[in-house]
Amino acid sequence: MPSKSREMVLVAFIQAANCSNYPGSWRHPEADHSFLTPQYYQNIAGTLESGKFHLAFLDDRLAMPSQYRDSYEDAVRYGIRSVKLDLIPIMTAMGLATHNLGIGGTYSTSYYQPFHVARLFATLDHMTSGRSAWNVVTSLNDAEAQNFGLNKHMTHDDRYNQADEFMEVVTGLWGTWGEDALVLDATAGEFADPAKVKRLDHAGEWFNSRGPLTVPRSPQGRPVIIQAGQSLRGREFAAKWAELVFVIFPTLQANQEFYSDIKYKAKLNGRDANDLIVAPAVYVVVAQSEREAEEKLHEIETLSTTIDALSLLSEVFNYDFSLHPLDEPLSDDILRSMTGLRGFLDRVVELSGKRNPTVQDFITHSGRGTVKELPVFVGSPNKIADEMAHWFNSKACDGFVVAATHVPGTYDDFCEMVVPELQSRGVFHEEYSGTTLRDSLGLA
Amino acid sequence: MPSKSREMVLVAFIQAANCSNYPGSWRHPEADHSFLTPQYYQNIAGTLESGKFHLAFLDDRLAMPSQYRDSYEDAVRYGIRSVKLDLIPIMTAMGLATHNLGIGGTYSTSYYQPFHVARLFATLDHMTSGRSAWNVVTSLNDAEAQNFGLNKHMTHDDRYNQADEFMEVVTGLWGTWGEDALVLDATAGEFADPAKVKRLDHAGEWFNSRGPLTVPRSPQGRPVIIQAGQSLRGREFAAKWAELVFVIFPTLQANQEFYSDIKYKAKLNGRDANDLIVAPAVYVVVAQSEREAEEKLHEIETLSTTIDALSLLSEVFNYDFSLHPLDEPLSDDILRSMTGLRGFLDRVVELSGKRNPTVQDFITHSGRGTVKELPVFVGSPNKIADEMAHWFNSKACDGFVVAATHVPGTYDDFCEMVVPELQSRGVFHEEYSGTTLRDSLGLA
Repeated sequence: MPSKSREMVLVAFIQAANCSNYPGSWRHPEADHSFLTPQYYQNIAGTLESGKFHLAFLDDRLAMPSQYRDSYEDAVRYGIRSVKLDLIPIMTAMGLATHNLGIGGTYSTSYYQPFHVARLFATLDHMTSGRSAWNVVTSLNDAEAQNFGLNKHMTHDDRYNQADEFMEVVTGLWGTWGEDALVLDATAGEFADPAKVKRLDHAGEWFNSRGPLTVPRSPQGRPVIIQAGQSLRGREFAAKWAELVFVIFPTLQANQEFYSDIKYKAKLNGRDANDLIVAPAVYVVVAQSEREAEEKLHEIETLSTTIDALSLLSEVFNYDFSLHPLDEPLSDDILRSMTGLRGFLDRVVELSGKRNPTVQDFITHSGRGTVKELPVFVGSPNKIADEMAHWFNSKACDGFVVAATHVPGTYDDFCEMVVPELQSRGVFHEEYSGTTLRDSLGLA
Repeated sequence: MPSKSREMVLVAFIQAANCSNYPGSWRHPEADHSFLTPQYYQNIAGTLESGKFHLAFLDDRLAMPSQYRDSYEDAVRYGIRSVKLDLIPIMTAMGLATHNLGIGGTYSTSYYQPFHVARLFATLDHMTSGRSAWNVVTSLNDAEAQNFGLNKHMTHDDRYNQADEFMEVVTGLWGTWGEDALVLDATAGEFADPAKVKRLDHAGEWFNSRGPLTVPRSPQGRPVIIQAGQSLRGREFAAKWAELVFVIFPTLQANQEFYSDIKYKAKLNGRDANDLIVAPAVYVVVAQSEREAEEKLHEIETLSTTIDALSLLSEVFNYDFSLHPLDEPLSDDILRSMTGLRGFLDRVVELSGKRNPTVQDFITHSGRGTVKELPVFVGSPNKIADEMAHWFNSKACDGFVVAATHVPGTYDDFCEMVVPELQSRGVFHEEYSGTTLRDSLGLA
């Protein structure tokens, strides 16, 4: 419910990679190619903090695309998400270059152990004075599974059942150190109060972990939990665990439907609906005039190729789209065999109006590999701020995840032109409130 | 063979923890207790770089001590290695605060996947412009296994067999990107040359991994490999893989024996013996006068307790030493049941001269929990530099791993007082040679 004090949350969608979420981004004439240096990420972080962004969060992928033509060659040749660095050095570098910006990173519940993840994010929370966030994903990609020694990924529901238990262990381990357990009395030789530290002794279906964690309670106690599930099972999971839900829907209306559904589900779980922030991913192309902005967008769109789309479609569905001509409808058997992200398949079926979409329908309606994968806000600063405020005030969202058409241009432009307009409308904060990410997001 | 140009390697033994290797260190009146901040580690790194140390390396432990009295309580109360932060944020922070210092970290081959480790250290190598090193360990501790969902750890030889295959996968993945694979031609849309990137397609007994890695070739190509095995099987492993061997022996003579043995084994593996650097861990207590140094050492020694020793003995042997009075000889059955670090058991049997040492023999001769666990060099800067040069020139070692009796005092003192003496003797470099850690260590 809009009130004077309600302010939107801004999140930047960052990749420790050669390109943004948009594979064509690295081909932009203004793209910075120094993605193998810490300065590249620290520059982005500095810009975001100057624009008062709440959070920068990094996605992850543990393999390069290689389903299309059963080969990694196109991904390497054309730079289609072929590079993914380990996130933790990148997050640390960004955290050390800033004072208020939250720093979030993606860690899969499928390939890591909960003790490792709990220790890692607690450490990051200390090193950033309470600005860490964990984006929880269940991995869905066969190429990743193969790098980690598995042949096929587990089923969709199993992934979420395992993830539920993973969360219990991680949050349990975070709770093994009480708030004032550290004594640090060197003279008396008393380091900490064992009465305020406990084991977890978790023995479950998927995981066992004893504890205590080897990290004293972190500034936030619990790093902020981000999640992106849009499927039914994914929503259940988000309604239970997520504090910031990152979504991809093509329209204002689809966002409104999700918004009302997930807030309702959070309440059913006994949660305050305000403690679950909904933020759709969008591209923003801004310039001083409408016409200039349209030209910028046109230039950006020309950077994408059909191979980008087919590579990323093959990847998200674990299915080689090179096996069919563009106009062939995919059979029920083939559709059933696709084991990847459910949300995309639903979207293609719905938008094409076909039970058996063709390969071209997948390209057109998924928007994979193009900027059409996400809603695009294009225009003058005024127009964009109005549109964002409209979504925000129409219960479509509590904020936005701003994805980059190119780096660092998207964030330079956004912070310079759009942020002041949002602030002047009173829908975005002028300054950070408090020092931790939880403080700044207004989370309990 | 000593020559004018042979120079010793200096390594600092750092813990992302409340105490150094010496649990009493945190009780020292000059100890810095800000171990939960990045500045603590960056300060140490700056000091080490000012003293031209080649490398700072961090150990790790994935659990706090909890074998003794079957409880973590003493570890927590007395600060006996009860805190262990995740290393990667710490290594990154140290790397970003320095320009020449190598940054090494410990990662276990027992709890992680090779793809993860390969990606991580390649990323660190990029972020530090070629200064990363990986200390390979096989984990030996039941408390760790329990945090990671296993009840008991696998046998000693199995651990090393698995570690051998782990190394093949990690080094294989590092080799999946050729040196000049990146093209970065945005206009032509050519990101990299697929002919210079390959799969690994490793399918082995313990691991499968397909590749390619998602990180382009790092500045060093291969981060430097550190290892610490002293057992027969550990030496085989080191002779095959290690470029810097970190050892703990009580005497000059024991170091000489090891030195000649491991260099011989490296040659049997077809390696140049100079490409395997041997560095024993030592404590150094230095002051302007002999007497002052002895007083400093005395103050340091008073910081240790019997519970420190019993806790850490229980931990390293996976056996609860509280079950016996101090003067009880441990039976053959009990000794056989101890599954931890072989080197320690051999040492206690040898130094006590008893087939069945008592608990007190373990405390006395292992030195666990005290500074006697490692050789202690104590005295004036002159005396210490002479002793280090003597070890170095007597084929006992190629350098030293300097452990801290307290932090940051040990490194402040060493860099201020000992380093100039070593330099004036011509046994330690005045300046870093080259920019990468490999350059500075003179490794191929």
